[in-house]
Amino acid sequence: MTNTAVLLIDCPDRKGLVAAVSGLLYQCGANILHADQHQDPEAGLFFMRVEWTLDEFDLPGFRAQFETLASQLQMRWRIELLTEPPRVAIFVGPHLHCLVDLLHRHQIGELRCTIPLIISNHTDAERLARFYNVEFHHTPITSQSKIQAEHEQLQLLNDAHIDLVVLARYMQILSPEFVQQYPLRIINVHHSLLPAFIGARPYHAAFQRGVKLIGATSHYVTEDLDEGPIIEQDVVRISHRDQVEDLIMKGRDLEKLVLSRALMWHLQYRILCYGKKTVIFD
Amino acid sequence: MTNTAVLLIDCPDRKGLVAAVSGLLYQCGANILHADQHQDPEAGLFFMRVEWTLDEFDLPGFRAQFETLASQLQMRWRIELLTEPPRVAIFVGPHLHCLVDLLHRHQIGELRCTIPLIISNHTDAERLARFYNVEFHHTPITSQSKIQAEHEQLQLLNDAHIDLVVLARYMQILSPEFVQQYPLRIINVHHSLLPAFIGARPYHAAFQRGVKLIGATSHYVTEDLDEGPIIEQDVVRISHRDQVEDLIMKGRDLEKLVLSRALMWHLQYRILCYGKKTVIFD
Amino acid sequence: MTNTAVLLIDCPDRKGLVAAVSGLLYQCGANILHADQHQDPEAGLFFMRVEWTLDEFDLPGFRAQFETLASQLQMRWRIELLTEPPRVAIFVGPHLHCLVDLLHRHQIGELRCTIPLIISNHTDAERLARFYNVEFHHTPITSQSKIQAEHEQLQLLNDAHIDLVVLARYMQILSPEFVQQYPLRIINVHHSLLPAFIGARPYHAAFQRGVKLIGATSHYVTEDLDEGPIIEQDVVRISHRDQVEDLIMKGRDLEKLVLSRALMWHLQYRILCYGKKTVIFD
Amino acid sequence: MTNTAVLLIDCPDRKGLVAAVSGLLYQCGANILHADQHQDPEAGLFFMRVEWTLDEFDLPGFRAQFETLASQLQMRWRIELLTEPPRVAIFVGPHLHCLVDLLHRHQIGELRCTIPLIISNHTDAERLARFYNVEFHHTPITSQSKIQAEHEQLQLLNDAHIDLVVLARYMQILSPEFVQQYPLRIINVHHSLLPAFIGARPYHAAFQRGVKLIGATSHYVTEDLDEGPIIEQDVVRISHRDQVEDLIMKGRDLEKLVLSRALMWHLQYRILCYGKKTVIFD
Repeated sequence: MTNTAVLLIDCPDRKGLVAAVSGLLYQCGANILHADQHQDPEAGLFFMRVEWTLDEFDLPGFRAQFETLASQLQMRWRIELLTEPPRVAIFVGPHLHCLVDLLHRHQIGELRCTIPLIISNHTDAERLARFYNVEFHHTPITSQSKIQAEHEQLQLLNDAHIDLVVLARYMQILSPEFVQQYPLRIINVHHSLLPAFIGARPYHAAFQRGVKLIGATSHYVTEDLDEGPIIEQDVVRISHRDQVEDLIMKGRDLEKLVLSRALMWHLQYRILCYGKKTVIFD
Repeated sequence: MTNTAVLLIDCPDRKGLVAAVSGLLYQCGANILHADQHQDPEAGLFFMRVEWTLDEFDLPGFRAQFETLASQLQMRWRIELLTEPPRVAIFVGPHLHCLVDLLHRHQIGELRCTIPLIISNHTDAERLARFYNVEFHHTPITSQSKIQAEHEQLQLLNDAHIDLVVLARYMQILSPEFVQQYPLRIINVHHSLLPAFIGARPYHAAFQRGVKLIGATSHYVTEDLDEGPIIEQDVVRISHRDQVEDLIMKGRDLEKLVLSRALMWHLQYRILCYGKKTVIFD
Repeated sequence: MTNTAVLLIDCPDRKGLVAAVSGLLYQCGANILHADQHQDPEAGLFFMRVEWTLDEFDLPGFRAQFETLASQLQMRWRIELLTEPPRVAIFVGPHLHCLVDLLHRHQIGELRCTIPLIISNHTDAERLARFYNVEFHHTPITSQSKIQAEHEQLQLLNDAHIDLVVLARYMQILSPEFVQQYPLRIINVHHSLLPAFIGARPYHAAFQRGVKLIGATSHYVTEDLDEGPIIEQDVVRISHRDQVEDLIMKGRDLEKLVLSRALMWHLQYRILCYGKKTVIFD
Repeated sequence: MTNTAVLLIDCPDRKGLVAAVSGLLYQCGANILHADQHQDPEAGLFFMRVEWTLDEFDLPGFRAQFETLASQLQMRWRIELLTEPPRVAIFVGPHLHCLVDLLHRHQIGELRCTIPLIISNHTDAERLARFYNVEFHHTPITSQSKIQAEHEQLQLLNDAHIDLVVLARYMQILSPEFVQQYPLRIINVHHSLLPAFIGARPYHAAFQRGVKLIGATSHYVTEDLDEGPIIEQDVVRISHRDQVEDLIMKGRDLEKLVLSRALMWHLQYRILCYGKKTVIFD
């Protein structure tokens, strides 16, 4: 893990914001590695991400002074240290392609996190979890047991000090109560190019409509189904030669790509949400 | 223009269809240049496109025998001669980028047609029409004059023996009565990746939703707005840095591409429609 | 496995080829599922792929009559039965992403084959091979041992009745003697958009040149390094923000996609090679 | 035109660069609209682009102080005012698709420039130039007259106070003497995905090689043919069904896209070159 910190800011736009933040960082000894700003002129908002090395940096001093500055400038902000990898739990259903993909990416160092926990309402993933030395929990779900199952899942997340939940084709809708426990800390992949084909069986709907491109979308989960802030989308061309099963197969590749990119960016603190939108500092 | 013919067939699938059609063509002296088939196993349908040279080919003889065969096999079919270029009218509004694009493509031989007529409810296109020696008609439209304007337009189309109408960002909704006069012979470009963002101002809607890709769609016009069979779609990546005007600008490139491809394929008789879907024999 | 057969043909183009082949198939009771033709007008060549169900089909009768026909029409041809899955060996080096990808695709039924054998000059893949119940052989390679190692590998392939060799980032150049044993039956993935960046370390070369897109290529291996017939290529956009390690990471996704597509098409007998080119009947 | 300024900087990376620049800008009253930085860790270089409004900004004061700062920090830099649109000359050969595209984009406000001059060694573009009220000069070129023609062209550029030359499929190689007059101020489009298929007839070479994607590249012209810094690249998928003329047709769309994007970015001072590479501040 690198010995760096990230500062994420959003606030009303005004003169001198970059100067104020970068000036204070310099004073405290920061060697800036990446700095990116964005203005939304329509909303009158300013966004900033700065990453710097912590060597020779006075973090407590910076924090103290920055708090005053941030309060004056009405900033929403957070400082994240990249010294500690976040702890990620993966929820999965019977389709394992995203899970297989994420676990290997993690193994070869693409994902800055630890994965202490896999949870599923099926048992298909158990052997794979064991192969990668990840704890596996089977929480079966029926319409009667759903509330109870979610309680159990939340307890598992809590016990494992989970920072982020990834729904890797989990196929179950989380209750608002569950979602509220992890605001903007649950990432889902939906197998369509949202907002097209919201809801169940999007590949079948795409096939019926006769579209020429299919897509997949990774997004934060909010209480409104399929309405959370979109993180990443991608598409692939299809033709009349493709049957529904071809769409499903081609779609799997998209799902892996958009979910893994979203996770990677989240773990590098590259994403800022505002309203239903995201700023991706790439 | 090439001296070739195209046969387009759709019918219930059964054994021996390719053999029957290609056998009869061979008997009548056809030199096949392209042949493509497609089966939709779910719908139980067979689709075929054959293109062959007319030199030394007995067209009347083929036609007579094929009619019998087609009737036995419950075929819907048509034979199109590529000896005569179709006559295309372009409808356009105040935004001329698709028109500029189509007229130059036509000039350098990309589009197998003549373009005798441009119709607009604005006058912006007049000078351009004159530059390319195309007749221009201004049919202003108000809520009161719409029916009258459509009558006038239909008369113009009729007088010019128009085979195909292209709506190159026309921005007016044609009445069902108009559409019925040109079934599957009106091509429109919609500035979103249908079925997402149906209706007006799709780029604004895409911006509000925070999508990461925007698209455009060319389709045949039917009586259901934005619901006609899709011919072509394409997308381009956007980011948080793109404002609505950037989406509109990037979208213009997509609109040109998907509309010109749709027109090119239609003019080569490469498109078969069934229900709300298209087979594109590329 | 489906009970179907595929006929692949290439021959000099002439009148009546489709009629002759489809007529004979119909006579012998074939129910055609897919038929696709292609003409290369410049080379004067005709290509055809037909797939049909073997139920109620007289295969020996067809074969006998077709041989006569094929000889008259100077056809190169082969009939492949999809009743038996081909046997595939995967060669891999220290980077396992393509192997992980292929093994899971195989497990969920995307690849019509068995995978009885994995061979590597490293031991990294051993545990993974065991997880998927595939035999693993470690054949270490030094400049001195290369000929000996290839002999051993060929023996392993022979003993396991291997039909196709897949080089899933194998990183070793096969000798011409090896390649000749499996003509057009070795598929490689090269981590550039060939013919750009031939040879070693293509991502480093791409980074140095400052390109804006990087690519990957799957191709048949011939005796000329990186010169074999290209099966599939894909690209991804990069920017100045991407360092070499980012190119390598983004490239891995391309490598998985183009290699798996090539393998899938080969196993469905969708590829015809002629000269340095491929026809992909999709 | 907007009343803004752009500052472009590259220099050895060190602590405090963002703070120093943004601090000075703030002092002089700048309202920053866009700020983007980039570090190349391998080369140890820092790059920055800032855009701010000139209202209430003390430009002479800033310039004076910044010169001192820049000299201390070994910066290469330039300040560009967006109050005056740059003057662009377009060179074109017999193929007009890029020219048609650029002139319409200019007309609808996509390109922040004036276009006072079109130069060609053919006369095909003359009528079009007149349509858009641009001065047209015909400078015929034979192997004997090339030096003389270039002298004439340089005189025309000089008389028209041209800031940037765009080669919109000009098809002639400029002499090193010509190129030296406009360092990093000549943009060309090459009809391949460089560095593949350098030189003449790249589409024919791509067809012969049997690639599955073709591309186009826009780049600055340097004395080394096809070796200048790449600005933008794009690709389109082709198949065995595409003949050379199809590649040429599909390629035209790519050429228009990559050339117009390069021009747009150059005119907004979004491009920084270093060595053979570009930073595109998008």
